[in-house]
Amino acid sequence: MHALGGKSIILRIELNGEQMKFAEITAAIAQAGGDIVAIDVISTSSTTSVRDLTVNVTSSEHIDPLVEQVKQLRGAKLVHVSDRTFLLHLGGKIETRPKTPIQNRDDLSRVYTPEVSRVCQAIEEEPDKAFSLTIKRNTVAVITDSSAVLGLGSIHPCAAMPVMEGKAMLFKQLADVDAFPISLDTRDTESIIQTIRHIAPAFGGINLEDIASPRCFEIEERLKQELDIPVFHDDQHGTAVVLYAALINALRTVNKKMDEIKVVVNGVGAAGVACSKILLAGGVQNLIGVDRHGAIHRGETYEQEMWNWYAQHTNPHQETGSLQEVIKGADVFIGLSRGGLLQREDVMQMANDPIVFAMANPVPEIQPHLIEDIAAVIATGRSDYPNQINNVLCFPGIFRAALDCRASTINEEMKLAAAEAIANVVQPHELNASYIIPSVFNEKIVPSIRQAVIKAAIRSGAAKKIPKQFHADS
Amino acid sequence: MHALGGKSIILRIELNGEQMKFAEITAAIAQAGGDIVAIDVISTSSTTSVRDLTVNVTSSEHIDPLVEQVKQLRGAKLVHVSDRTFLLHLGGKIETRPKTPIQNRDDLSRVYTPEVSRVCQAIEEEPDKAFSLTIKRNTVAVITDSSAVLGLGSIHPCAAMPVMEGKAMLFKQLADVDAFPISLDTRDTESIIQTIRHIAPAFGGINLEDIASPRCFEIEERLKQELDIPVFHDDQHGTAVVLYAALINALRTVNKKMDEIKVVVNGVGAAGVACSKILLAGGVQNLIGVDRHGAIHRGETYEQEMWNWYAQHTNPHQETGSLQEVIKGADVFIGLSRGGLLQREDVMQMANDPIVFAMANPVPEIQPHLIEDIAAVIATGRSDYPNQINNVLCFPGIFRAALDCRASTINEEMKLAAAEAIANVVQPHELNASYIIPSVFNEKIVPSIRQAVIKAAIRSGAAKKIPKQFHADS
Repeated sequence: MHALGGKSIILRIELNGEQMKFAEITAAIAQAGGDIVAIDVISTSSTTSVRDLTVNVTSSEHIDPLVEQVKQLRGAKLVHVSDRTFLLHLGGKIETRPKTPIQNRDDLSRVYTPEVSRVCQAIEEEPDKAFSLTIKRNTVAVITDSSAVLGLGSIHPCAAMPVMEGKAMLFKQLADVDAFPISLDTRDTESIIQTIRHIAPAFGGINLEDIASPRCFEIEERLKQELDIPVFHDDQHGTAVVLYAALINALRTVNKKMDEIKVVVNGVGAAGVACSKILLAGGVQNLIGVDRHGAIHRGETYEQEMWNWYAQHTNPHQETGSLQEVIKGADVFIGLSRGGLLQREDVMQMANDPIVFAMANPVPEIQPHLIEDIAAVIATGRSDYPNQINNVLCFPGIFRAALDCRASTINEEMKLAAAEAIANVVQPHELNASYIIPSVFNEKIVPSIRQAVIKAAIRSGAAKKIPKQFHADS
Repeated sequence: MHALGGKSIILRIELNGEQMKFAEITAAIAQAGGDIVAIDVISTSSTTSVRDLTVNVTSSEHIDPLVEQVKQLRGAKLVHVSDRTFLLHLGGKIETRPKTPIQNRDDLSRVYTPEVSRVCQAIEEEPDKAFSLTIKRNTVAVITDSSAVLGLGSIHPCAAMPVMEGKAMLFKQLADVDAFPISLDTRDTESIIQTIRHIAPAFGGINLEDIASPRCFEIEERLKQELDIPVFHDDQHGTAVVLYAALINALRTVNKKMDEIKVVVNGVGAAGVACSKILLAGGVQNLIGVDRHGAIHRGETYEQEMWNWYAQHTNPHQETGSLQEVIKGADVFIGLSRGGLLQREDVMQMANDPIVFAMANPVPEIQPHLIEDIAAVIATGRSDYPNQINNVLCFPGIFRAALDCRASTINEEMKLAAAEAIANVVQPHELNASYIIPSVFNEKIVPSIRQAVIKAAIRSGAAKKIPKQFHADS
């Protein structure tokens, strides 16, 4: 049994030994659907004992009735209830540590005054030395304006911090990148750009996160022009890279070619645009974007500037109409929109061996079980179905590569290389319709991405440094 | 022999065994004034070996001739020279780490999507929960505009990073505070204020550092008004706290009282103003500030607004003239100016048992050996004389306290309490003219400051939370 969807709570209970046997509590918890997985005695006296019980429940809905049941036991007092997720967040999830301890006055004089001033002077004479003598070499800022956080949308800057901290954890654990979370107390495009420009000297890369569309386009574009370090809006490009990786492998399972398929992208926001761009760069010829008003085509003029660009570069046959109309004959459906927008009937209109990527979160555009019998490949954004399109597959490795070759930018060629590297982690003999994308815990992912992306950076001129192992080839 | 002032270099040498004995190299290095303290064999073949020699030299001037001497040895090839200080800085001095590892998909679902969104929602409902559920609880930003770094003055933003990283190391090692270094790519007062305001949600405190006067006053003042977390310009207040601690103990050694002494402060910049303010708050009645144009007094109108304030609040007897004139009869000289500004003749004009704090860096206002016979107590900013006035004594403990009681500000009462705590770490039986201030490695410092400052924060209403151990008293 796996614990996904399930949760843990910790009950602190004060027991009165005379009135109550401990076994009665365990029985009551079991009856309410709880599974006691750990017991810690906190304190005891002659008549009472205080214990922490870690209890697994299969879903959140079980918690309240279980707590009620425990409260009603005579002789047992429920001191408090904590939840393992909240306990993991107490005091934050990351820390900042010295890489070497300062053991004596001699160490102190080297890492701080007076000796540190020689290092400052060396960087003053040649600012590029910051890439070897400061944290810039290995540090990425994870920056949000908290305007489009998970499914929550626009929230308080402080409320976005747990997501950014989680991302910083993943950066370090998966790719040994030091990442620091910044949640901006501004929503103004110009203020966001200026603030990031002003704090950039500490960092070797900027990971933009959960910034609403369309302002995310301008922010990224401007920062790319104004900074000499990579700027990468993960919601756009991370999603695009992983989607493209998944599509490479999905097409392999049905023996179709990128330049021969018809793709419908439903939802042309930040992620939809980025996914469309990588597919075009990857060779897709016939791609149609659909938003609220139907297929985007050259016959219309759109308020959103990005859509006018989009109309110019997609939909070669000028198809018009609703999703239901343009999906006819499509080989691939890519959903980046809302739950429930796709029907079984629509999928039945698609070409043979239809590929359905229903990536809306938390509810996919169509529930996989509704089309299991007619779709060749199904992928979602969720971890409880096969083929999860998860950005965690991309951002650690792509920044590892960018830092190691001091990339000035993360260009289209590097993103395509990252996607191919992810796709190729799934070996030909492993590949099947339920396994087109590797697990985020697969240890080959980061080294594979690093290798491929550094090569692409060198080829495309983005690498300002060629790491030793790449000296011979490129 | 202690290594202060001395330095280490690492020589990578390729030796040709037929032409050269290793002993010849060690002899040559010794002759050039080097002391080999470690040897690491890097690689060997039948005819050559590559070794890293760590060599101590007494001062920087010895390095070049030593390197030249090694280069001229036949049969030994100098591959490269590294210096221990630079090696310690390679790749930066701090790292950002997860506090708990993500071991499986279940962990991932708690620290990241989907479970993390429950934590985000809890903070969204009550933003103050960020102080318990995010890094805000324990994290301080160390922020500079790189306009007044050490003795180097105004330097490139990247060149200031080693100092800020060093400070972050000290925060963690001495007080378990997570600190992150930010070096701003702007010198504009308004931009600095806005940038810091915008990145504040991640942090529980702001340590301003190496920002030039007079803009540092406005920046700190405005941020104090606009943020609900403590803002502390260490060059002003850290210096002031440690100076005041030293003065408390210096006065004890000569049996004088704070409210009876005459103090001359030479150099009325950011640090001079802050030191003067803490002395006034500590009870000093007769304090005279001297700058380039002589004593500051009410008879003049100054361009610098701060000096007009200063004239109103100091110099009760309206003394005028140069340092040489107003130092007559002074009990205490406090130098925050430039090397060599104070003469032995000036000290001879002071009251009996003169106290001289010559804190200019790296060259003090007067060299201690010139007045050892006539001054009762001498302190400097240097580590190679007794009584070093060092900010490292203050900032870790004062922020530890501020974070632990969620102080909204660090007020005058808290600074005085910190100074008294530092002074009291020196026990009465230890106190003497050469030991008025403890070592930065004294483990009592941070706990003593924490205790005293939290009490002061509670008394003065700055504490938004009363830590458990302070519940009974205050």
